[in-house]
Amino acid sequence: MNAFAEVDTPALLLDLSALKANLRWMADYFAHRHAKLRPHFKSHKCASIAKMQMDAGAVGIACAKLGEAEVVADAGIRSILIANQIVGPIKISRLIDLCRRAELMVVVDSPDNVRMLSGAVSAAGVSIGVLVEVDVGMGRCGVAPGEPALKLAQQVVSSAGLRFEGLQGYEGHCVDLRQETERTAKTLQSLKLLVDTRRLIERSGLPIHFVSGGGTGTYTLTGNCEGVDEVQAGSYATMDWWYGDIRPEFNQAMSILTTVISQPRPDLVIIDVGRKGFGAEWGPPRVKGIAGSEVISYTSEEHTKINVPHDSKIEIGDRIEIIPSHGCTTSNLYSEFVVHQDGLVRARWPIEGRGKLQ
Amino acid sequence: MNAFAEVDTPALLLDLSALKANLRWMADYFAHRHAKLRPHFKSHKCASIAKMQMDAGAVGIACAKLGEAEVVADAGIRSILIANQIVGPIKISRLIDLCRRAELMVVVDSPDNVRMLSGAVSAAGVSIGVLVEVDVGMGRCGVAPGEPALKLAQQVVSSAGLRFEGLQGYEGHCVDLRQETERTAKTLQSLKLLVDTRRLIERSGLPIHFVSGGGTGTYTLTGNCEGVDEVQAGSYATMDWWYGDIRPEFNQAMSILTTVISQPRPDLVIIDVGRKGFGAEWGPPRVKGIAGSEVISYTSEEHTKINVPHDSKIEIGDRIEIIPSHGCTTSNLYSEFVVHQDGLVRARWPIEGRGKLQ
Repeated sequence: MNAFAEVDTPALLLDLSALKANLRWMADYFAHRHAKLRPHFKSHKCASIAKMQMDAGAVGIACAKLGEAEVVADAGIRSILIANQIVGPIKISRLIDLCRRAELMVVVDSPDNVRMLSGAVSAAGVSIGVLVEVDVGMGRCGVAPGEPALKLAQQVVSSAGLRFEGLQGYEGHCVDLRQETERTAKTLQSLKLLVDTRRLIERSGLPIHFVSGGGTGTYTLTGNCEGVDEVQAGSYATMDWWYGDIRPEFNQAMSILTTVISQPRPDLVIIDVGRKGFGAEWGPPRVKGIAGSEVISYTSEEHTKINVPHDSKIEIGDRIEIIPSHGCTTSNLYSEFVVHQDGLVRARWPIEGRGKLQ
Repeated sequence: MNAFAEVDTPALLLDLSALKANLRWMADYFAHRHAKLRPHFKSHKCASIAKMQMDAGAVGIACAKLGEAEVVADAGIRSILIANQIVGPIKISRLIDLCRRAELMVVVDSPDNVRMLSGAVSAAGVSIGVLVEVDVGMGRCGVAPGEPALKLAQQVVSSAGLRFEGLQGYEGHCVDLRQETERTAKTLQSLKLLVDTRRLIERSGLPIHFVSGGGTGTYTLTGNCEGVDEVQAGSYATMDWWYGDIRPEFNQAMSILTTVISQPRPDLVIIDVGRKGFGAEWGPPRVKGIAGSEVISYTSEEHTKINVPHDSKIEIGDRIEIIPSHGCTTSNLYSEFVVHQDGLVRARWPIEGRGKLQ
């Protein structure tokens, strides 16, 4: 048995040394740059990690969901950007409650949403920061660059209760491109749309406090781009194999500890975790530390088949660590990280943001 | 606004009338057959539904995980089959605790596991029911049909603390075949392997109390097969579009209520749920109730794009219901079902088995 003998499986492991090295690398990168780091909570969903990121110099935290922002505020973090549209009376009411205990910002991309936000926020006697989201080529949320963004910014400026803070543009169609040359070219195209829109709005006389964008896949471009002030990177903290392939400067801190429950042949083992225990949108997990082994394409709800070498001597009951392709959808499936260092379990950190879909 | 105006999104909805009709259909199917229904908890993970299934005549509940079995026992259900191998000292210790408050059965497929189970269970002074799992063609867990299964059964019979109950064979490679003729042919091949193994073991003088197999995709075959005594169907209760296509006798009870948060063009809307809010292994969700609309292939962590007709009049803030391709991995992402009937919210049922990976 190994250092994890007392850990039941499947368990979400977090290598503390690897995590700290990742946080240090990113903090160093942004330490002497104009652009600052606003780590994305949606990736790890863990308040303990968010607080370490703040201690390492982050300007605040980005969240995908209002429910995540509530968790981050509970952790005592003040500056929170919800990087999505907050729509509908139930959510806007919760947003107003949260405004009273954090410096909150949201993004908008439609006149109707601006009107509803302004009406509710001003009636409640609070105010909220607002970024206009610009579609920089991803084709998801966001207004078109240029005049449409300027027009929406003008509406925000003239809306009671809303503070126009600037722009958000997320190059989500670029962050995971595997070829660096293509990723660089497309990211720079997207950034030009975003920065040109910034300049257009500034020329119109509206001040832009900050422009936010980026991710782990593109931080060296967004973090170096004149006109971008904040970078929302998430995956760099815990990593996964998908980002690991294109960002080798970060260490793989997240893994899943599993147990071999069946061995139909010497070279085939079945482990006790499947699609309910890892995100696999970007491919099946990879095996850690067994030379010559690979996860084959078969994963079902609760099982994964692994081809191992004939001479691997793996047996039923042995533990195998696997690395998911996508950390963000994996952390969402667990209630805690089992934190380890130097071969010992050091702590269990709750994943407070797990399942905060609302 | 509609009947769900007070329900925040994304929310996992459950249509009570549809659920009851599904439970009734399946109960009627098994009412006058030799084979009995043992519903699989892994699909809905909800104690309220499990209790309704028991009230409708189920002989007990099947679970994928020990953690699910603990939830089912907490709900007061006695007969529980954990349809997987329980491996390692931590889990076996939990299993022994659970044995003291439920009639527990597990499956085995290796001599080592039988030895460990027997040693621990007999040392604790309890006993546990055991089924030998036979690989009937899926190529996952299970011993080979015929002599290998007989040999393992003989080991179980001679092992202290273990009660040999019979066999389990799961035709998981057949349950989701889209063509009925192919599904039928392959299922019958698998069942022949299972029943032939039963007869071999019986001829050797060992009594078989029951043979368990089947699923929602094949219940009309497994439920009618001489030599099969119990059918483990799960998805029939809440359903999903994948099983709905091949099992139109069941109603779609599960859906996800979402909100439109962005509308870049009149014919394109973005809703507030993505891969963290639905299982999509078998394809992206489908849209309910909007003629001419479809979910396009794009789904990300927190967003899904839907093409809607130009004249659909859908606006930001509107609610859209979607149906996942896989219910089992979807219920695992929510903490409750919002139960509705006749257009009104009737209850919220906790999903106690959510995330019970261990």
